[in-house]
Amino acid sequence: MIGSLYAAHLSRVTDVWVLTRRLEHARALEASGLTVSGRADFTGTLHATDDPAQLPAVDVAIVATKGTELDAAARALEGRLPEAMVVTVQNGLGAEQVVRRHGAWPLVSGVTFMSGTRHDDTHVEYILDTETWLGPYNGLPYDRVEELARLIERSGLKARAFPDLRPAQWSKLIFNATVNAVAALTGLPHDPHFAAEERPSDLGHLVHALVDEGKAVAAAAGIELHEDPWEMNVLATRRGSAHYPSMLEDVEAQRPTEIELITGSLVREAERLGVPAPLHTALYRLVKAKEDSWLLQREPEGRQE
Amino acid sequence: MIGSLYAAHLSRVTDVWVLTRRLEHARALEASGLTVSGRADFTGTLHATDDPAQLPAVDVAIVATKGTELDAAARALEGRLPEAMVVTVQNGLGAEQVVRRHGAWPLVSGVTFMSGTRHDDTHVEYILDTETWLGPYNGLPYDRVEELARLIERSGLKARAFPDLRPAQWSKLIFNATVNAVAALTGLPHDPHFAAEERPSDLGHLVHALVDEGKAVAAAAGIELHEDPWEMNVLATRRGSAHYPSMLEDVEAQRPTEIELITGSLVREAERLGVPAPLHTALYRLVKAKEDSWLLQREPEGRQE
Repeated sequence: MIGSLYAAHLSRVTDVWVLTRRLEHARALEASGLTVSGRADFTGTLHATDDPAQLPAVDVAIVATKGTELDAAARALEGRLPEAMVVTVQNGLGAEQVVRRHGAWPLVSGVTFMSGTRHDDTHVEYILDTETWLGPYNGLPYDRVEELARLIERSGLKARAFPDLRPAQWSKLIFNATVNAVAALTGLPHDPHFAAEERPSDLGHLVHALVDEGKAVAAAAGIELHEDPWEMNVLATRRGSAHYPSMLEDVEAQRPTEIELITGSLVREAERLGVPAPLHTALYRLVKAKEDSWLLQREPEGRQE
Repeated sequence: MIGSLYAAHLSRVTDVWVLTRRLEHARALEASGLTVSGRADFTGTLHATDDPAQLPAVDVAIVATKGTELDAAARALEGRLPEAMVVTVQNGLGAEQVVRRHGAWPLVSGVTFMSGTRHDDTHVEYILDTETWLGPYNGLPYDRVEELARLIERSGLKARAFPDLRPAQWSKLIFNATVNAVAALTGLPHDPHFAAEERPSDLGHLVHALVDEGKAVAAAAGIELHEDPWEMNVLATRRGSAHYPSMLEDVEAQRPTEIELITGSLVREAERLGVPAPLHTALYRLVKAKEDSWLLQREPEGRQE
């Protein structure tokens, strides 16, 4: 869905190829283009294929899959696109290393705050028109990142280049690890419960403690955060309509979640740095166990009261 | 359901009156008796009414409601049953104090490990034929508890009297707070996941940490536990068919859970004693938030990936 927003917008300022998983999706895009509604209103014309071998030599490849599908997507590009700079825009940490295992492309780190809804193969609704943040990975010249940010801006999306993306990446990591796991476990969308700290039972106390744990891990990693995740949380819950975090949607559809890439990466960093993160570790194990529960056959045996 | 198991069995050795909430339930019990299947196979004959004023002067009243209905049940007995000894068999801590607010009856503390399934108003299946443990509350002579335990045993159920029930009550409290909340949040029945401690993501690590937190609270309260809740957990998960904790069933049916009486009472004791209990507190807030989520209308606004 995020990938569709990039593809459609960029098709207005440059040639775009979309690599799909399904042949019929590629055919539909070739035949009908990609329509954006919501915050924008146009249909982009682009090329699409489900066969990586059909991709021409592009300058930039944006890998915008869900984290759980990243490895397969990067593998599909192995040995291809020799001149491309590859951009990762997954949640969590470590997407760059996953892509790196499959090729020596120059890499751009990205995080995006955009959101939308996929209506069908050729129609995406652009909902939150927030920024994509980009930074060089492992020594890529910064002017190439700035150039890419300008291209994305010309296409009608919002983008911003940072010489060092990690402060922003970590702000979003802590925010995401907290909000996604709590939403996935409680069934609550990201609403005012997440900021409530009045009664002892209020959820905001837990959210605050999770954010503080994450900040301690970031500090130990030498990261000065770009934004305070607690402030991001409070602001987001005041936005009016509550946002459904993707992990809550995954849980409701019983799909594999991004818990390993989001909370998992935070917990592993805490472990590596010797910083305690008992609450994130607890939520990590609870969401993993929830994924396991979908494999079981439900057949209640008895009640105990 | 637990109340039905007591009523049916006790009707074989003494006169039993059942106080129901619904008139048709009382009428059905009067007309058809109460049938037990499973571990036993008989139909008990008893009296039933939905009107507390109809109850005769009984010697013993067993209050076996769900914790969330305890206060209403005790209120219904206010000013009645002057000669009765009242037995509480709720999960968690504090049932005795709730009953005490409504009358000066001598009290017996109970915890039960029985389980069953309610099939309809006049049929209950007896599944786990485990013990009910009883102890005197606030100075009640111990021989009255022993006498009650013998009566329950004669009726065909298993019972055991303890001069001090708190070590058993706390063992079950820690076990219940841990297993119920984890099951409610993950959707897992009480199965081998709860004892798995091999991989870092394994749920058993969290269960173990929750048990250890609970044991520290018990120690600070001066309680020497009757059984190690971790051992109770490991044994129960080896029982073959996985048990559905009542809080998981409540969550699946979107009914109010016993979280306040179980985890809530443990968290409040920790607070009172100045012992940290961050993991139980986290689970307490997550389950409370999950209950809140049932009040919301589900209308996804958009996905963010």
